[in-house]
Amino acid sequence: MTFVQTQYITFAQSPDDFILRSGARLGPVTVAYETYGTLNEAKSNAILIVHAFTGDAHAACYHKGDDKPGWWDDMIGPGKPFDTSKYFIICSNVLGSCRGTTGPASIDPKTGKPYGLTFPVVTIQDMVLVQKVLLDRLGIIKLLSVAGGSMGGMQAVAWAVMYPGMMHSVIIIAACHRHTAQQIAFHEVGRQAVMSDPDWNGGNYYGLALPKRGLAVARMLGHITYMSETSMEQKFGRRLVKKDVLGYNFSKEFEVEGYLEYRGQSFTERFDPNSYLYLTKAMDYFDLTDGTQKLSEVFKGVTADFFIISFTSDWLYPSYQSQTMARALKANDVDVSYVELSSNYGHDAFLVEIDEQAKAVSNYLAKVYKERVK
Amino acid sequence: MTFVQTQYITFAQSPDDFILRSGARLGPVTVAYETYGTLNEAKSNAILIVHAFTGDAHAACYHKGDDKPGWWDDMIGPGKPFDTSKYFIICSNVLGSCRGTTGPASIDPKTGKPYGLTFPVVTIQDMVLVQKVLLDRLGIIKLLSVAGGSMGGMQAVAWAVMYPGMMHSVIIIAACHRHTAQQIAFHEVGRQAVMSDPDWNGGNYYGLALPKRGLAVARMLGHITYMSETSMEQKFGRRLVKKDVLGYNFSKEFEVEGYLEYRGQSFTERFDPNSYLYLTKAMDYFDLTDGTQKLSEVFKGVTADFFIISFTSDWLYPSYQSQTMARALKANDVDVSYVELSSNYGHDAFLVEIDEQAKAVSNYLAKVYKERVK
Repeated sequence: MTFVQTQYITFAQSPDDFILRSGARLGPVTVAYETYGTLNEAKSNAILIVHAFTGDAHAACYHKGDDKPGWWDDMIGPGKPFDTSKYFIICSNVLGSCRGTTGPASIDPKTGKPYGLTFPVVTIQDMVLVQKVLLDRLGIIKLLSVAGGSMGGMQAVAWAVMYPGMMHSVIIIAACHRHTAQQIAFHEVGRQAVMSDPDWNGGNYYGLALPKRGLAVARMLGHITYMSETSMEQKFGRRLVKKDVLGYNFSKEFEVEGYLEYRGQSFTERFDPNSYLYLTKAMDYFDLTDGTQKLSEVFKGVTADFFIISFTSDWLYPSYQSQTMARALKANDVDVSYVELSSNYGHDAFLVEIDEQAKAVSNYLAKVYKERVK
Repeated sequence: MTFVQTQYITFAQSPDDFILRSGARLGPVTVAYETYGTLNEAKSNAILIVHAFTGDAHAACYHKGDDKPGWWDDMIGPGKPFDTSKYFIICSNVLGSCRGTTGPASIDPKTGKPYGLTFPVVTIQDMVLVQKVLLDRLGIIKLLSVAGGSMGGMQAVAWAVMYPGMMHSVIIIAACHRHTAQQIAFHEVGRQAVMSDPDWNGGNYYGLALPKRGLAVARMLGHITYMSETSMEQKFGRRLVKKDVLGYNFSKEFEVEGYLEYRGQSFTERFDPNSYLYLTKAMDYFDLTDGTQKLSEVFKGVTADFFIISFTSDWLYPSYQSQTMARALKANDVDVSYVELSSNYGHDAFLVEIDEQAKAVSNYLAKVYKERVK
């Protein structure tokens, strides 16, 4: 077991603030991050891992006292695809989250109280802006790679457009360059579940009862979209929790109901309902084309190589969205590898379908390092 | 414009009660129904239309003062597939609903108060049982057809198994013979949204504030599952409600958000939250095999002909479920026609993708009438 501690750093962009995409100013910002492995002297082996919606800086190794490692420990470590014997891995919690980095649950230095809904609406690009300043502070000039799945993949592709000279490669897994109507719709139902909970109280619930019921409902819905119809059927089917006869009441009877309840309730123990609103909104706002440009135009200045992965049964971020990015990059003569991996796990595949993904990422990183760094 | 009035009839099965699948007794039951066209002397031209989840007895024509006709008026009327110049059409509101037939919002004669959660959990088969007694009362011995989409399709296939001698044909559109884990999961999220609303109050909200917020969230989710990713993208894309710039707040900005809000709120004006719980539960309980039999065994006594329709983009009741029924019927040498219609409308297709569906149903009914009645 390798142990790691989350580190915290507080900074701003301009003297006091970050200027966000909305025009709002926010600062200073505290960022929670972890690193694994060692930065080489040439500073040429750094990889930034960008996390998904409810993830955090704790991507790998163990926190003392925990019995579970970080969320991508299968992928990060000695001999693993993000090989810590070769590479220096950085992962930071995103702006707007509640897992160490400044977000709506943080104390507003101007009032001494939690921001709540006075926290500015942040975007994927704002998350990247904060990560860029973090890397500046860490003295990283150019990354070997920026890699992430789902919302992490959105940050990764935004990185390539915002700071094209900053990385040799980008690895995007199960993501997209813009949210569709259906993706927005699922998020809006989740937000309405949270905001309909009377305990939400306009976002001012800190120190009071948390709007847990609404957040649990939102998370239950999320978990349906993270799985596939097939994986749900294989995992639960119509099996009953307790006995083989129907109870003819509204208690949880089917295993799938029990699973969703468990997932919903445990989520409320670790996630701030307002962060749920802010991060889903950031994804819904995400559209690299801003609704006006062609994606191939957006990718014009891109100099990184790309590796894009999608999964056959992922209906939340379907393969066609990855293919759209790959095509628009190709149109700019970018070196793009795209692979659609076969999996029944739906969107969850990027976290659980490790074998093929590991091999593919491992080979890709070795190739990039050889071709572009050594 | 042809006007129609809903009729009401109150009856029981045994002297006082219906004995439901759960063993619970319920009665007497009031049933709301409508009829269109004229029953011929031979009583050989009757068709029972069975409605979907939130439908009702008002399938066609206009109620005085309404500017919208019944929910399947495109399909029912003179010269339409369910041709009222030839056929006698009956449609009744299902048991457990809130649209005229006895349900949880009805007054329990034993207490003089609304049933609420003391209403017994009903099944698809219980709905069919009540319909059977209604037909007995109307003097119908044998139906030309039982036809319905979605939850209506579940009732139709249950009819064929429960009363095999009672119909010449069954028309099943966008339905299944058993709910899958994913179908149960979506319903459970909706139920939890309702039951998490403090106004729900254990189902005892009659005469008090209705749990509208929870019901609206449940309905918003429903509407996502009724459309397809493609139809949502075509209808809404990322278009904004008011102006072309993002507001950076949590108001409804995207058209798709406004649409879901409208659908959610208007649903709360016409539907009882407890009926939402009971009818989703009835569908989730639905499994013609009872988890023990092979479907081909279940269909052994079936004597009706079948016409089964599914739609390419329906991901809520995907085509494979229709195909499973068709195969199991074929294994019993039942005369089955199956057609998968091409549509982008998702599950909603059975209500809106009328042209091809109309032609197919019209031809099928003419054929059955000719072959099996005349």
